[in-house]
Amino acid sequence: MLPGVGVFGTGSTARVLVPLLKAEGFEVHAVWGKSEEEAGCLAKELGIPFHTSRSDDVLLHQDVDLVCIYIPPSMTRQIAVKALGIGKNVLCEKAATAVDSFKMVTAARYYPQLLSIMGNTLRFLPAFAAMRQLLVERYVGEMQVCDVRVYGPSLLDQAYGWTCEELMGGGGLHTVGSSVIDLLSYLTGERAHRVHGLLRTFVQQNGLIRGIRRVTSDDFCFFQMLMGGTGSRSGGVCCTVTLNFNMPGSFVHEVMVVGSTGRLVARGTELYGQRNGSKSEELLLGDSGWVGPEVKEMTLPHLQGLSSMVKALRESFQAHEERRSWARGPVAMAPTFEDGLYVQTVVEAVKRSSCSGEWECVEIMSQEPDPNHNLCEALQRNKN
Amino acid sequence: MLPGVGVFGTGSTARVLVPLLKAEGFEVHAVWGKSEEEAGCLAKELGIPFHTSRSDDVLLHQDVDLVCIYIPPSMTRQIAVKALGIGKNVLCEKAATAVDSFKMVTAARYYPQLLSIMGNTLRFLPAFAAMRQLLVERYVGEMQVCDVRVYGPSLLDQAYGWTCEELMGGGGLHTVGSSVIDLLSYLTGERAHRVHGLLRTFVQQNGLIRGIRRVTSDDFCFFQMLMGGTGSRSGGVCCTVTLNFNMPGSFVHEVMVVGSTGRLVARGTELYGQRNGSKSEELLLGDSGWVGPEVKEMTLPHLQGLSSMVKALRESFQAHEERRSWARGPVAMAPTFEDGLYVQTVVEAVKRSSCSGEWECVEIMSQEPDPNHNLCEALQRNKN
Repeated sequence: MLPGVGVFGTGSTARVLVPLLKAEGFEVHAVWGKSEEEAGCLAKELGIPFHTSRSDDVLLHQDVDLVCIYIPPSMTRQIAVKALGIGKNVLCEKAATAVDSFKMVTAARYYPQLLSIMGNTLRFLPAFAAMRQLLVERYVGEMQVCDVRVYGPSLLDQAYGWTCEELMGGGGLHTVGSSVIDLLSYLTGERAHRVHGLLRTFVQQNGLIRGIRRVTSDDFCFFQMLMGGTGSRSGGVCCTVTLNFNMPGSFVHEVMVVGSTGRLVARGTELYGQRNGSKSEELLLGDSGWVGPEVKEMTLPHLQGLSSMVKALRESFQAHEERRSWARGPVAMAPTFEDGLYVQTVVEAVKRSSCSGEWECVEIMSQEPDPNHNLCEALQRNKN
Repeated sequence: MLPGVGVFGTGSTARVLVPLLKAEGFEVHAVWGKSEEEAGCLAKELGIPFHTSRSDDVLLHQDVDLVCIYIPPSMTRQIAVKALGIGKNVLCEKAATAVDSFKMVTAARYYPQLLSIMGNTLRFLPAFAAMRQLLVERYVGEMQVCDVRVYGPSLLDQAYGWTCEELMGGGGLHTVGSSVIDLLSYLTGERAHRVHGLLRTFVQQNGLIRGIRRVTSDDFCFFQMLMGGTGSRSGGVCCTVTLNFNMPGSFVHEVMVVGSTGRLVARGTELYGQRNGSKSEELLLGDSGWVGPEVKEMTLPHLQGLSSMVKALRESFQAHEERRSWARGPVAMAPTFEDGLYVQTVVEAVKRSSCSGEWECVEIMSQEPDPNHNLCEALQRNKN
């Protein structure tokens, strides 16, 4: 039996998610917005019976068994952890920091019977699911290089907000890079152990962001990841990722994996392949066509992935009689909160590398940093 | 009046160059090959009256006023410097090391009345000449990012040779990266001051290279260059270059410049542009069609550039009555030996970076390193 859903957020993803949920038979009972007005507006538009700007009203809503969180990264951890604590299943977008991600992991580990998955939906895009299958079947032989390019128009909101602020989780690396980092670990079956990167903010001001305010989030980002064992430096897959959001009118979303005997390329939502012996590429999976609401071409891979993820969620919950119970099988490929922590750790390592200019190691947090650590050190210094 | 030409080398470029020279009215009087047999073969094939395996026979040939050097990098310096010393004009391919390049610069400075240009022909490709003009006219506004990708089949020769050896000037970075480095300084009007790179040799052996022999030259290379003043780290153009020669059946040669108000992309020999306001790309310069001998698609940008360079050479020499005199105008855009030293310095900095994992500074040699330096130091140490 399908669970009742509560949605946090009134942004573009939430706006697409609600119709997708409804189409699969989920009932959306409540929506939260940062103002009553925004929440009311979306509720009216999408026919949601209850709206609020108080988070507890959604979390404690008796008909809500699954909470979908699509809000600014800096607020995500608080809602996600609380939802799990109340016994609700959680689907959520990335948090703002590794510490937040770690707290979410801790909560998810504490409630293993609850569903807790991250909203990196690229894994669910049929092209990438097929790509992974072909990689497992060694279509490309030994994997050598992954090369990802995402080009598009500015990611900034119309008004000044979190998307402009690096520390709030804005920027191409955090917003789009995250999903690429997650995807590459899914495709290669490996995690990055060392990264190198370069971030730039070419456009620091525009017509809407003036005066003393400046954009601090990156609009160009370029990073490399060495995947696999921390052993030999020459082994493992090299991933190179170029993100450029100074290209209005462009929509490039290309993921290429080159191996010893061939290669696979996903362009947008289509998958192409070429084996070394062959003279040209073959189309392995065409675009299935988007039937949801009208969206920007740029976000199609993410939204088609979202659509597939919602289908998987439906299958997962349908398998059980009880509203809150779910089967692991259909959502086994979904990114866990642990994956979310890994992604956030890589994002922060790339940012460190951009500052230091050096290769940085990816070290997953295993223990929450003591918030009093700096204070203790300072006291210690004063004592001596 | 056009000078008589002597050609060093019997490889694929020499094989294309000779017909191009003849088509423009140059007479090719002599060819050198590393064996009499190879030289004789090419001479017969292309109708060259004299062939030899002794370099002096070409250099001292009385009808030869222009020497074209297309031989393995490790041999280039010796021939080029000697040719200038004998008073011949020189067109040549890159040398193997920065020290060799520096020696060539010294010779070129010593004989400023002689023509001495490097064979990086991409500058002459009409698409890139047009691109540079549009960049000067600020088609893209403020330049931000250059992104270059060259993908293709293996660069290795059929048999084991210098192309397999990193120290002999083999590998994608040295062979193809050089021309890209030169092109980007031409397009941006700036030089790289810091670089970061990663080189790999994914295929270390193949059917022809077996036993204890291993390929040491790179078949995958990925580097970033920060162009412009050595001042602020945030200013200047970021260049990213990806070279992958593990892709048989692929022919990608793409150079993109993204700026604040638009972008330009050269794909193969065609130039496209898009301004930020516009919804799609426009074709700015189509392919002019290749009328020379049949060649691999991969090398078309280089060969069409070579063709334009030969035309420019003809104009340069035609301007004067005397066989060895030439006008600077038509070949003003050609890369000089100083450009060759810059390119070689960047190549070596990228290699250093790949070893150190750090950003490396590009410091152009201003003085030949003392070959006895290490010896002197050792003696000094022993004395103390």
